[in-house]
Order: sequence, then structure tokens, then C-alpha cells
Amino acid sequence: MTKIEVTGIAASDGIAIAPVYLLTEPDLTFDRTTVEDAEAEAVRFDKAVEQATAEITQIRSIAEKSLGAEEAQVFDAHLMFLADPEFTGQVREKVSSEAINAEAALGDVSDMFIQMFSAMEDNAYMQERAADVKDVSTRILAALLGVKLPSPATISEEVVIVAHDLTPSDTAQLNKQFVKAFVTNIGGRTSHSAIMARSLEIPAIVGTNSIVSQVKDGDLVIVDAIEGHIIVDPTEEQVKEYQEKAQAFEEQKAEWAKLVDSPSETKDGHTVELAANIGTPKDVTAVLENGAEAIGLYRTEFLYMDSSDFPTEDEQYDAYREVLEAMDGKAVVVRTMDIGGDKELPYLELPEEMNPFLGYRAIRISLDKKDMFKTQLRALLRASVHGKLRIMFPMIATLQEFREAKSFLLEVKEELLSEGVEVSEDIQIGIMVEIPAAAMLADQFAKEVDFFSIGTNDLIQYSMAADRMNERVSYLYQPYNPSILRLIKNVIDASHAEGKWTGMCGEMAGDQTAVPLLLGLGLDEFSMSASSVLKTRSLVRRLNLTDMQALAEKAINECTSSEEVVALVEEATK
Amino acid sequence: MTKIEVTGIAASDGIAIAPVYLLTEPDLTFDRTTVEDAEAEAVRFDKAVEQATAEITQIRSIAEKSLGAEEAQVFDAHLMFLADPEFTGQVREKVSSEAINAEAALGDVSDMFIQMFSAMEDNAYMQERAADVKDVSTRILAALLGVKLPSPATISEEVVIVAHDLTPSDTAQLNKQFVKAFVTNIGGRTSHSAIMARSLEIPAIVGTNSIVSQVKDGDLVIVDAIEGHIIVDPTEEQVKEYQEKAQAFEEQKAEWAKLVDSPSETKDGHTVELAANIGTPKDVTAVLENGAEAIGLYRTEFLYMDSSDFPTEDEQYDAYREVLEAMDGKAVVVRTMDIGGDKELPYLELPEEMNPFLGYRAIRISLDKKDMFKTQLRALLRASVHGKLRIMFPMIATLQEFREAKSFLLEVKEELLSEGVEVSEDIQIGIMVEIPAAAMLADQFAKEVDFFSIGTNDLIQYSMAADRMNERVSYLYQPYNPSILRLIKNVIDASHAEGKWTGMCGEMAGDQTAVPLLLGLGLDEFSMSASSVLKTRSLVRRLNLTDMQALAEKAINECTSSEEVVALVEEATK
Repeated sequence: MTKIEVTGIAASDGIAIAPVYLLTEPDLTFDRTTVEDAEAEAVRFDKAVEQATAEITQIRSIAEKSLGAEEAQVFDAHLMFLADPEFTGQVREKVSSEAINAEAALGDVSDMFIQMFSAMEDNAYMQERAADVKDVSTRILAALLGVKLPSPATISEEVVIVAHDLTPSDTAQLNKQFVKAFVTNIGGRTSHSAIMARSLEIPAIVGTNSIVSQVKDGDLVIVDAIEGHIIVDPTEEQVKEYQEKAQAFEEQKAEWAKLVDSPSETKDGHTVELAANIGTPKDVTAVLENGAEAIGLYRTEFLYMDSSDFPTEDEQYDAYREVLEAMDGKAVVVRTMDIGGDKELPYLELPEEMNPFLGYRAIRISLDKKDMFKTQLRALLRASVHGKLRIMFPMIATLQEFREAKSFLLEVKEELLSEGVEVSEDIQIGIMVEIPAAAMLADQFAKEVDFFSIGTNDLIQYSMAADRMNERVSYLYQPYNPSILRLIKNVIDASHAEGKWTGMCGEMAGDQTAVPLLLGLGLDEFSMSASSVLKTRSLVRRLNLTDMQALAEKAINECTSSEEVVALVEEATK
Repeated sequence: MTKIEVTGIAASDGIAIAPVYLLTEPDLTFDRTTVEDAEAEAVRFDKAVEQATAEITQIRSIAEKSLGAEEAQVFDAHLMFLADPEFTGQVREKVSSEAINAEAALGDVSDMFIQMFSAMEDNAYMQERAADVKDVSTRILAALLGVKLPSPATISEEVVIVAHDLTPSDTAQLNKQFVKAFVTNIGGRTSHSAIMARSLEIPAIVGTNSIVSQVKDGDLVIVDAIEGHIIVDPTEEQVKEYQEKAQAFEEQKAEWAKLVDSPSETKDGHTVELAANIGTPKDVTAVLENGAEAIGLYRTEFLYMDSSDFPTEDEQYDAYREVLEAMDGKAVVVRTMDIGGDKELPYLELPEEMNPFLGYRAIRISLDKKDMFKTQLRALLRASVHGKLRIMFPMIATLQEFREAKSFLLEVKEELLSEGVEVSEDIQIGIMVEIPAAAMLADQFAKEVDFFSIGTNDLIQYSMAADRMNERVSYLYQPYNPSILRLIKNVIDASHAEGKWTGMCGEMAGDQTAVPLLLGLGLDEFSMSASSVLKTRSLVRRLNLTDMQALAEKAINECTSSEEVVALVEEATK
């Protein structure tokens, strides 16, 4: 029998060998029937409630151990609700008065409760209760139907998670101790689950198209997330081979780890800054462990996305202060809110758009909703005294937008000063360069900004007119295309002509093929997943700046395709 | 009482004064009821059928006169269907057997017929029959409910059409003799209805947001589609004032008309080519009447969109030959199929995309579906002997795409030659430059293409990362932004360095503020709506190339915003 091998996009380095844990939606459909013995049906319901209670109690205890008391609290709410005779009593009453099956009665009663809670639109607490009813009812229903529900929080053995896709909140719940890797059907290197995987340092392969249908729960799999393939039901030799490969990878990582305090300096003495991207204050630990010299991108939208309402000024201040203090004087580049595109906020009603990536998002929203923007700027400015803060605005297309955002920032600063609040006098203000128009006018921007940070994920998709999430055109997502390299060069040269600096916080900054080119183009700061910092430092230390300058020059002027550029880099760095 | 004045975007020049004809969806909802006297209900149904027959007969006769016999044929099919006892018999039968109202019976029977015809998916004829059933049933239903249906084809008095939006097929049915203008709630200068309006030379204002709710059927309105405003229920003085304004506009047009055979030459003797954009062979008349020197863009997708199945090689050949022969040796630049984005084909199943403008469209489809592409290329090459054909590929992002498309074209040519078919040896092959990456690599492309044609509508939206159809970000659709001017300059300079030429076929080419700048940047060919050609020629003849070169230089290097560029042009050309 030939072994099944599935390929995908390696999204987070590493190798794992473990049984599959399928994280898929179970089939919970049922028919509405009449029952003859309503009393027996009520007893069946009670048993299902008992089973659900036992399961939740167990999940609660495992979650408390693996994720902490705070994360486990949600299950207390579930247990309270299960114990509430108001809810279970109504289901029993409906079974006996209407002589219908427990599934149908449960469905009716829970729908009613959900509607009731959901109707209280302005009450975030009640909205959460609606989610609780849904979770609890689903668990009772599964018990009634004899269907097993996946519950990632209770995983207590080493597994490889297999799913169609993982939401950011799914990924956040994964326990690194037991989840050795994950593999999904959809997604790309720059999708959120991939970014989270790198941040958690869990090996991951995304975009396999078919993994969910190719494996069963419990199948042993090898996940090679360095090369991007999965072997299902491997032979003993294969297991051995990959154990060795995993070992070699660990040794390689140990080698890199020795560079944690070394300078990011080329052989000929040119120093660059290697920084890390973060989403929450929790990520700072990995930043420091991996020896990053700064935070080049703090994605503040997670503060908004992980909340059921706009985060308050104080909540934001606390988060920014925590990061600034933890970085202890190292630079922290904070990007103001980048919502819209593929990132939605349930409590901010955004219009349905035909092309959200070309729509109302990021600075366009901030300049339109100044109250919300002001809250964020106040929090940032208040936090500025606790470290080395840099602020950048995302999705800037025109100089007018930058001028408007900057002057609003200065206005907010004046307001704070007049309130007697201390604000740092040394905050650099820059922009993300991720729209081609801004890259084309970099010389004009360079006169007015303190720095640029190139956002390659978006810059590439706009420059190539290809949605990076769309499989049909993802072949056009070409970071090494000479057109992209020229835009990058234009930005870097323009900043240097005005004595400013340019960083990069897109995926490309940590890409081992791109780094030699970016070094040659003169990039000053490289900001990437914390897990890529040491590997990149090791690479930088093996390269010569003058050689890389010649390489970049050649790539830009002589290569006519991405493939030619890759071949050139491979030849020059082998 | 203050007169209501509504403003919008002037999409096609001109002034009209006429009563409103509201082209909106009537309310055809009904309740399902039981009837006591089923026989009386059947009689009511028969009367409705009679009324519908009379209406369709009348529409048929008016449509035949105003639009021609071919366009009127669809109504013959409707009449045949109405006369078919199979359909009306079943409705009558249902009314009497189920004692339900005629509306409900009609709905049930027509749904059944529609489903039956629609189920025959591969049969385009049957699919059209489904549409016929729908049209006929809607008319009977309206008669039953006593609701009037709008029928633009029957308009036989001068009117101003007011609608939420007009589809391309709505616009195609408008009779220029009676439709003096149209005004819509949505749309912009580059939406399809706007392009069609200019092609038909009907004054039009789009994007008013609210016109439908501000007027009633029959209200007298003044439509000033030069300035972009509508006056509802005007005073006598206003009517007089606008009659004079319309008169002046006609005189201005008569002045321009004298330039029909004059060269498009600046005061200092520099000649450019003024060409026109077309969608169908019918548009050639206007091209010649307006003295255009070439066709700079033949949008072949209308051949696909106006059909219920892929147009055959012969159908395409006939269309291309007709245009080439009518142009009598003047150049005709044909763009290969540009489907996708906001242009759908019902018979080509395109995937649902999150961001269709960044998706699977144009050359990306052609290179993926080579059979379809081959049919078009064979038709084009066969037609090439009948005139001066130029072929261009849309949405080219990389050199590889161009090379693949060109070598496929040469392959198809070899095949034709080996079949003994004659093909012109003098066909220029070029690309649309509408993706920023292609503009950045223009020097490399210039070595391999025969010409460039800049598609500004898309180039601007990708460069600014702003969907031009999205009202929330349409302020970022800035043709005069210095970043756009720089990209254009890059393309023109690159083509000239290799002895090639650059045209422009986006809306910008006929824009009176842009023309001085484009002239100064060295643009060789300007392709626009036929109705803009004479006005543009008049402008070109008033300008000096050397002055415009200095103007363009200044706009690119010194202006930091679209507004500054506009002010500069106004100052220089006033």
C-alpha cells in the first residue's frame, strides 16, 4: 500500500509526529418527532444533561490546569446555566405537554433563550449569555444524539490538530504542551492562523486543500512543516527518519539560540536591526527569548478583535504600557488600528463591500471615526513615558491622509499636556508603506515622516492586483518579483536621502530568500515572527553587505521574473 | 416653496428638460387566499391574460419601430407562450380544483415551468424560455393586481429616465429619440451605465443617491449633465435659462463638429492620435461621425456578455471583420476578453470571490481556459486581413503572462496558416498597463511588446488600493495624484526608449484636465468615448507641447496632491 502524502504550505517551522485530532463540525441534525412515552423522553433528557454536566466539569478542570483559571471561568457560567431549573424545566415541560422528542424541545427552548438574550443588543453581558446557552445546548444535543464533540481545551495527550481552518480564537486556545502541530485545508503563509502558529512556535502546514478528508481521528501522521508535507500512517523507517530530522532541527535551533545576544552584523561590519511582530502583550516573552532588538510591529487590532466592545482608553493604556515596560527601552513600533479588509469587528458595523481589501479599512476608518481614533491615540501618548514608543499609521495612500493623522495626533497631545498628563517628547511618527501610490511618492513622504515600515503582504497584493487569500490567483503573490523589489528600493532610497530609516514588517522580512536582497537594498530594520529572528541573525552574520548590494542591483535590473531572482539568490548565497 | 435640486456625477455631457419616467421595480406581492367563486376567479384570470396580450402586442409594435425587427422578436416568443393553452389551462385548472386566487395559481404554475426549463442547464434555448415565462407571468400578475409595469421599450414621448441603476441591457434598450437623459441613484463616471451613456450620447447624471425618492412619474425636471445637477419642478425662468444653456451647448458642439477632419495637432506642431473606445460594431458609426482617427479599445467582452452562450468563432469573426472593414484601414486595437471583476458571464461559472477586482479575471481566465482563448484568437487572426488589427491583452501583471499569451497567439497563427487560412503579417501585439507591477517593469516589457495602452480605471484603483465603485473610498480614486502621473510617465518613457508607442484607453484619456498633462508626459494615443473626441481635439489644438512638458514636469516633481495638480493645470490652461 502506498502511503498517503499530502502537501501544503509550510507556515511555521518544525516537525511533529503524533496522532490526528480532528477539529471539525460534527453532524447535529435531527428530526422533530412525536413520542408516545413522554415520561421516558424526559428521563432521556435528564441523562443527557447529566452527561453534559460531567463533560463540562471535566473540561473545566483540564482547562484550568492547562490554560489558567481565567480561561476556565467560562465553564463555570456553563455549569451554572445547566443547574438552572428555569431552562431544563422548560424543556421537560415541553416534552410532556407537546409529546415531542427531547431534541426538538431543547431546540425550541434554547432558540427562545438565545433570542431573548440576543435582543438585548446594548448589553454585552447578555450577549455573552446567549453564547453560553448555545454552547450548553449543543453539548446536551450531542449527548442526546450520541455524537462526540471536539473540545480542543481538553486535549491532554500529544496530538496533531487537523481542521478545515482555525479561527484566531481556536488558535489562541491551543495548548502548546500537547498540540504538536496543526494542519488545515485552507490559508496561506500570511493568513492569521499561520501568523499565530509562528507566534506560538507550533509547527503548522496550511492550504492542503484536502487534509480533513484524508485522515481519521487517531491516525498517526508525520508533519514536516519545514518542507510542507504530511505523511499519513507512516512506516517505522519513516518515523525513524523524521525523528532524526526533528532532532537535527532541534540542534539547528540550539545553534541559533547561541546568537541570542550577538549583534545582527554582516561579515563586513554592517549592522541592521532585527525586530519582532506582536499581537498582544503576552507575545513579548517570545520576543525577548529570541533576542529581538525591538518590536517592529505591534498589531493593536487584536485589542479590538478579542473584545466584545471598543477597548477603553485605560484598557489600551495598560496593554501599551505593559509592552513598553517589558521591552525596557528598546523601540516599540505600534501600528494604529488596522480593522477592515478580512478583519471584522462584530460591534463596529462595517458596510458590506464588494472588494473589502480595496475598501474602508485601517486609517480610512480612523480618520472617519475620530472618537475611536482619539481613544487609541490618548492611550498611546499616555503610555509613551514608559518606554521608547514609535507610532505608525496603516494603509496610508496620500500625503493628505498622513498630514491629517499626524496633526490630529499633535492635537490630542496638546489636549493631554493641557490636562497635565505627561507625554514623551521623543516619539517617532511613521507610516506603513503598503499601497503602491505611497511607494511611488516616497521622496515626498520622506520629508514629512520619521520612518517607513514596508508592509509587504498588502503591497504585493495591490501591486500585482491579486488577492493573496484567493487560491486561483495566489501564484501572483510574488515577493521576489522585480517590480516589488523596485518599489522597495524606491522607498529605502527616498528615506535615506532625507536621513530617515526604513523597516519592513511584512512576512518577507523574515523570509530567508528575501533577506539577502533586502540587506542589499539597504533595509534598516527587519521585523518578523519572533521565532524567525535567530535564524535570520545567523543568516545576516554569514553575508557580506557589498556582495548583497551587487546581488540586489542585478536582481532589479537584469531579472525579469520571480524565478530568475530566486535562482540568482540561491547561486549567490549557496 | 424652494425648488428641489439634486446633485450627482455628470457622466455624459448635455442638458435635457422633460418629464420623469420612473424605471423602478413595482410591488407585486400578493397573499394566497381561497376563493368561493372559482369560476369568477378563472374569468378574472382570463381578463388579465387578455390585457397582458394587448400590452405585449403594443410593446412589440413600438419596439419594432424604434429598435428594429430583431429586438422585437423576443415579444413574439412572449405572445406565443401566452397563446399556449398548456400554460394558461393549468392555471385555470388550479384555480378551480384548489379554489385559490388566480395570483397564487399563476405563481405555482409559472414556478413549475421556470424550474422545468431552468433544469435543462446545458440548453441555452430552454434557459431563455425560462426567462420568457418569468416575463409573461410578471405581466399577467401585474394585470391581476392592477399595477402598471414600466416598459422602457414602449416610450414614445420625450422623457428623462430615473432609476436606482441601469443595467447594460437596460441602457442598450433606450431609444435616443425619446430618452433625453437619464439619472440614477448609484454609479460613477466609470460605471458601465455611464460609459454606455457617453457611447449613446445621452446626457446622464449618476450617483445622486436619492433621485428615485425625490421625484414622481411625470414630474418635469431639468437635467444639467454638464454641471451634474437636476432641478425638479422648475420655474418658467429656470426652464428658459436652461433652454438657452442647452442652445449654447449645441452651438459649442457645432463648433467642435467643424474639427471632424482637422489634425489633432498642438499649436507648436506636435501630432497625437485621438481614438475612440467601442463595445460593439454598432458603435463604429459614432466613431467615424466624431472624426476619431482609430479605435483605441474594442471591448470584446460585450460579445460574451450579450450572449447566452460562448460566442462562436464565426460570430466573433463577423463582429471583428465588420469593425475592421468599417474603419477602412484605420487602426483597431482589440482587447481580448476582460471578464471577471464586476463583469460576470452567466454561462461561465466563476468562483465566488472575496475581492473580485483582485481575482480571477481577464488574461488570468484566458490563460487558464485556453479553448475559449483560442476561439477568440482564431477569430481575430482570421479577421486581421480585413483591416489594421492590433491585439492587446488585459490585466497583464508579469512578463511570463505576456510571453505565454503571445506564444499561444503565434501557435494559433501557425495552425491557421497550416489550414491555408490567410492571416495578416502586420499585427501589433501589446498589453494593457493597468496593474502597478507592469508599470514598474515597463522598461522590460517595452523590449517585448509592440505597444502599451494604459488602463487608468484599474491602474488608479490598484495603485490607491481603493475600489472605484465603493462610495466610502471613492475619494481615493485620484487620476491626477502625482503617484499616478509618475507611473504613467514611467510607462511612456520606457516605450519611447525602445521606439514603441503608448496609448491610454481609460476614462482619463478624454478628461479635459488630464489631457494637458498627458500631452506633456508624451502620450501618443488618447482613446476615449467617441463623444469626447472633438472636444478633446479642440483642446489639443489650443495647447503648446513645450508648455505642457514643463507643466507635467512640475506636476510630477512639485505637487504633493491631486488638488495641487488640478490648480496647476487650471492656472496653466486658463
